[in-house]
Amino acid sequence: MNVNFTPGPSQLFYTVQDHVREAFRNSIPSISHRSKEFEHIYAEVKSGLQELLGIPSGFHIFFTGSATEIWERSIQNLVEKDSTHFVNGAFSKRYFEIAGQLGKTTFKVESPLGSGFNEPVTLPEQTELIALTHNETSTGVSLPMAFINNFRLNYPEALIVVDAVSSLPYPNFDFTKIDSVYFSVQKGFGLPAGLGVWFVNDRCIAKAEKLANDGKSIGTYHSLPTLLTNEKKNQTPETPNVLNIYLLDKVIQDFNRRGIQIIRKETEYKAAILYQALETHGLVQPFVKDKASRSQTVIVAESGEHTESISKHLEKVGLFAGEGYGEKKKTQLRFANFPTHSKEQFELLVDTINTIV
Amino acid sequence: MNVNFTPGPSQLFYTVQDHVREAFRNSIPSISHRSKEFEHIYAEVKSGLQELLGIPSGFHIFFTGSATEIWERSIQNLVEKDSTHFVNGAFSKRYFEIAGQLGKTTFKVESPLGSGFNEPVTLPEQTELIALTHNETSTGVSLPMAFINNFRLNYPEALIVVDAVSSLPYPNFDFTKIDSVYFSVQKGFGLPAGLGVWFVNDRCIAKAEKLANDGKSIGTYHSLPTLLTNEKKNQTPETPNVLNIYLLDKVIQDFNRRGIQIIRKETEYKAAILYQALETHGLVQPFVKDKASRSQTVIVAESGEHTESISKHLEKVGLFAGEGYGEKKKTQLRFANFPTHSKEQFELLVDTINTIV
Repeated sequence: MNVNFTPGPSQLFYTVQDHVREAFRNSIPSISHRSKEFEHIYAEVKSGLQELLGIPSGFHIFFTGSATEIWERSIQNLVEKDSTHFVNGAFSKRYFEIAGQLGKTTFKVESPLGSGFNEPVTLPEQTELIALTHNETSTGVSLPMAFINNFRLNYPEALIVVDAVSSLPYPNFDFTKIDSVYFSVQKGFGLPAGLGVWFVNDRCIAKAEKLANDGKSIGTYHSLPTLLTNEKKNQTPETPNVLNIYLLDKVIQDFNRRGIQIIRKETEYKAAILYQALETHGLVQPFVKDKASRSQTVIVAESGEHTESISKHLEKVGLFAGEGYGEKKKTQLRFANFPTHSKEQFELLVDTINTIV
Repeated sequence: MNVNFTPGPSQLFYTVQDHVREAFRNSIPSISHRSKEFEHIYAEVKSGLQELLGIPSGFHIFFTGSATEIWERSIQNLVEKDSTHFVNGAFSKRYFEIAGQLGKTTFKVESPLGSGFNEPVTLPEQTELIALTHNETSTGVSLPMAFINNFRLNYPEALIVVDAVSSLPYPNFDFTKIDSVYFSVQKGFGLPAGLGVWFVNDRCIAKAEKLANDGKSIGTYHSLPTLLTNEKKNQTPETPNVLNIYLLDKVIQDFNRRGIQIIRKETEYKAAILYQALETHGLVQPFVKDKASRSQTVIVAESGEHTESISKHLEKVGLFAGEGYGEKKKTQLRFANFPTHSKEQFELLVDTINTIV
């Protein structure tokens, strides 16, 4: 059986195909998003995510078409003038650029590819939003939790927004230290693409309402107040991707049955054995040197001139590595470490890498 | 076998479940939206829609999360100050409201529920966009083609934007008389919800570019210039609903194999026998009195106090009528007449209605 390690769209979570069959048996693709049945699914997703990720009350859960949409909506709804962005790869950079396109004054803290952020930085006092990419999918750099949790104290007025597109459900966020988190379902949740999931707390709602009251444009059907009005009824403003919301509900239930502690421990085990193999290997090494900045969910190997041969070697046993991102396409390999990837698959991956000399 | 006549989300087109199976067999839900395979699917959707709907060159085809999103994006990208909206139901009204929320000066031409537009109307000279709802899903009112085609001559500067959410693939638009058309896939195309499809011509692109050059905000990842840059590579700016785009490709191929002429003729036949049954029935009648304004794809019956009993009578033979919309929920029934609904199903529907006395 083939195993796909590309970090996104990921290999599907192994239960998804059965859930799709069940969905068609129950006519889920044709239910109305104004029906009791849909409201029940939305409510289950909310309670399921609260349980899985420890999200406290005071946080709302909204659906969008993509995480890219959340970049735009979050700037529209949460920033009047100034936003700050920690940029260390293609995806954090794009969020920064979107804020500029929307006419905001943007402040950028940049780190070279493969490096993370550890040291405290002084930000503009007037910054309204601090954009943190927990896991930069393009480089495999992750932000330490202590780094994320440090901002609340020093910038109590700013809204702290965390991109967890390619790390959730793994990270154990302290939701008292952040105001918004988002992800898209085609990474760690192993679903078909086409759905973004956005958590915001009441401070975010209040900010959007203030902007609207001050006559600023916060968009229309996907403004936070409109999303909130609909969420109160467990509905969405528009006809959403109902099938994917149903599948998300089912996969969250699968995750909760397994238990988030086990998922986290297995993630760490799989990451540890792969980093260990890369560190001790003659031809490749981990791209991220600082251990505290190494992603547990997207592991990037600096493979240089051996990239193609390693990739082919792995393919022979049915293991498909992801290419490097952008300029690193031909010199790096990326390995997603998501809940769908089993310990056995990672052990096979590590054993195979170790045979390459 | 049950038949679902609710106008949306509709009953799935009868081939969809097989296409989903095939998609999973071929790992379509995990392909990258930057892959050759995805580019091939996007290219096929474009050429397939061009063939099916007679779309000439000079029109571009973009994907969004929903038709609701297209309401917002079209106003953002095509209107600096003034838009005009023909409003005769809940959906045309919502497009009008979105333009207002985006700070535009909106001009509304309104018609009572169940009535259409036939007479020429004088619009503000400075109007930049004329919003026409070809088929108002809430009331079953359709705009005659001659009415739509009349605007180009009198308002050559305005962009003419047509909402065909619940009528395509049936209508045979004259694309020299309009600038933009859009639909969502969960109606006539019989797909799971979560995808909007937007056609725009080069005049729309030029207008969006002019607004951007003048320093107006036209959005970010889903602005027309950004959509266009990606469409040239048969790609999308964000990770889209790849599975639904694949399914759309397959259903368009099914439609083209059947032939649009046959689909149109069957649609007209099914509509004719149902309107005939409603006209000659003692307890119900067509809601739309003016025959030229009657929708061929969403047929609304004024059923008054008999609504519930008729609905139950139909359910006994497995036929599920849609409820009336909004305030008409308890006094009207709506019947979708989409390609997935066969002549035999409509004949059974008509025969059953005729037995109710």
